Amino acid sequence: MAYQPDFGIEEELGLVEKKLESSLESEVKRLTEIATYSVNSGGKRIRPMVTLLSFKAVGGKDVEKAVDIATAIELIHTGSLIHDDINDGGDLRRGQASAIKKFGLMDALIAGDFLFSKGFEIGGQTTYEIVQVTADACSSLAAGEILQRKFRGDPSLTMDGYLDLAERKTSRLIAAGARAGALVGEGTDEQVKSLGEYGRTLGIAFQIVDDILDVIGDEEKLGKRVGTDIKDGNITLLSIHAMNNGSKSSREELASILRKQEKTEDEIQRSLQIIRESGAPERSLQDASNYAQMAREQVSSFDEEHRDRLLGFVDYILNRVS
Amino acid sequence: MAYQPDFGIEEELGLVEKKLESSLESEVKRLTEIATYSVNSGGKRIRPMVTLLSFKAVGGKDVEKAVDIATAIELIHTGSLIHDDINDGGDLRRGQASAIKKFGLMDALIAGDFLFSKGFEIGGQTTYEIVQVTADACSSLAAGEILQRKFRGDPSLTMDGYLDLAERKTSRLIAAGARAGALVGEGTDEQVKSLGEYGRTLGIAFQIVDDILDVIGDEEKLGKRVGTDIKDGNITLLSIHAMNNGSKSSREELASILRKQEKTEDEIQRSLQIIRESGAPERSLQDASNYAQMAREQVSSFDEEHRDRLLGFVDYILNRVS
Repeated sequence: MAYQPDFGIEEELGLVEKKLESSLESEVKRLTEIATYSVNSGGKRIRPMVTLLSFKAVGGKDVEKAVDIATAIELIHTGSLIHDDINDGGDLRRGQASAIKKFGLMDALIAGDFLFSKGFEIGGQTTYEIVQVTADACSSLAAGEILQRKFRGDPSLTMDGYLDLAERKTSRLIAAGARAGALVGEGTDEQVKSLGEYGRTLGIAFQIVDDILDVIGDEEKLGKRVGTDIKDGNITLLSIHAMNNGSKSSREELASILRKQEKTEDEIQRSLQIIRESGAPERSLQDASNYAQMAREQVSSFDEEHRDRLLGFVDYILNRVS
Repeated sequence: MAYQPDFGIEEELGLVEKKLESSLESEVKRLTEIATYSVNSGGKRIRPMVTLLSFKAVGGKDVEKAVDIATAIELIHTGSLIHDDINDGGDLRRGQASAIKKFGLMDALIAGDFLFSKGFEIGGQTTYEIVQVTADACSSLAAGEILQRKFRGDPSLTMDGYLDLAERKTSRLIAAGARAGALVGEGTDEQVKSLGEYGRTLGIAFQIVDDILDVIGDEEKLGKRVGTDIKDGNITLLSIHAMNNGSKSSREELASILRKQEKTEDEIQRSLQIIRESGAPERSLQDASNYAQMAREQVSSFDEEHRDRLLGFVDYILNRVS
């Protein structure tokens, strides 16, 4: 795994890795193989991290339960990534062949279901409130995926529409982790609420950074080509900014490329150029910073040690390069 | 819905229908539409029925919880059917266009995930033991689906291999319903165990009857063509019996057809003829009867009223025509 700064959760993250591994044992070797491949394909463990940071911030004691819920959320997240790749026809995921490319659509689909089941099985050991938060985030994921498909290649998607999508597709499961961590740690109602909101705003910042990296990221560090969102027809915050701020002719050109089902490499490169020249990356980075700031404001009342870690995690999300 | 005999659970089944409907509400209309279409496409509600029968047999009082778990299991079952259809490329499901045919693979896939999430959300309101039983049945479903694909078109599948598949793909979720119903109803350990085993053996009988109907069923009542299993390459109990008992030449002919990826209509009809002439339907019916008898033996110690209903339900499963 890539270098990660010290957030005081290294030991617990190690336990999450162990739990992830043991949870995927199954009598059917291929299922374990596909699920393990997907879980181990370079995920950044953002959701377990936010869960554990929250848990520690409220002074949580029952580490085992926190590790369980962190594991459950990562399993569910990984299952949803596999199904996403089926939807997007993604060949690469974090620099490796996607599960669908490597194992075929059908087996990958079922491995995704297996990851969901295992996630809910482990998550179900906690309280109903946590199950509800997690299941609700999953329903949101499904809704987000349907909406994303609906708006595919539609350059008229508004900023509000985009934020709604980002919330459903990314932010809500990160918020669920933050909230669940605080709940398992027996934080006060106030703390649970603040950390949930911390996760929500951080999750949106995370998605925006994802969008930015798809335009100006380093392909080697990303493990995928830039312009993948354009290729797949996903409308990102950057294309929205470019559509709102570019010259009339470049807006029209961008819109006509975004609308195409199939795009040539030249068209993808041209879109990236238009987006870059419109100032969309800088505007988007400002948006991400604004959400990051909202996240920071949620944690001002925690003790210094934990506040610093939660703030450090915001910077980590904002400054990531992959 | 088709006529159903009186098992003393009509009111609760009505509540399950209401709960199914309300659980599928979502802000994203299309998701609700696909999920509702799938849930309402003529399912026999076998899993809710067995859950409620078990619940009542142990004298359960908390009807709301029993309705919840019955609903949860039906939601999960429906989600798995959608994903099955993606795997099988099934165009028809219970006489209607399958969700994948009607709404497209991608949206149907996500609607399946949505049904899983909702199922686990509702199921998560109960105890951990119930969540575990249900999640375990789901993992088994996934394992069964992978194994089924592995043995697709493989006429050397053994009887043991078949029973393992039937257990994973069908029986374990029915057993989970029976067990969960007894748990929610606060039955004794003995009752929970007996009813779980009742569900398990009944589930295998159910699968065998499914196999039989695919060879000698009434297409109109079935709502699909007979020979679908042969077309899809699924090795059924009937093809195993035919492979074990037919003449050498007919066995070879059947094996060579089963192995083909694509089969002509003539080849499907010829397979059906070989299977029918081998006596496989009668042998399979005997097997189903044996499992039904095992189910009956599990419930001998219940009071007359509930025993009669549980026995009546066995007959209902055995004598079904669709």
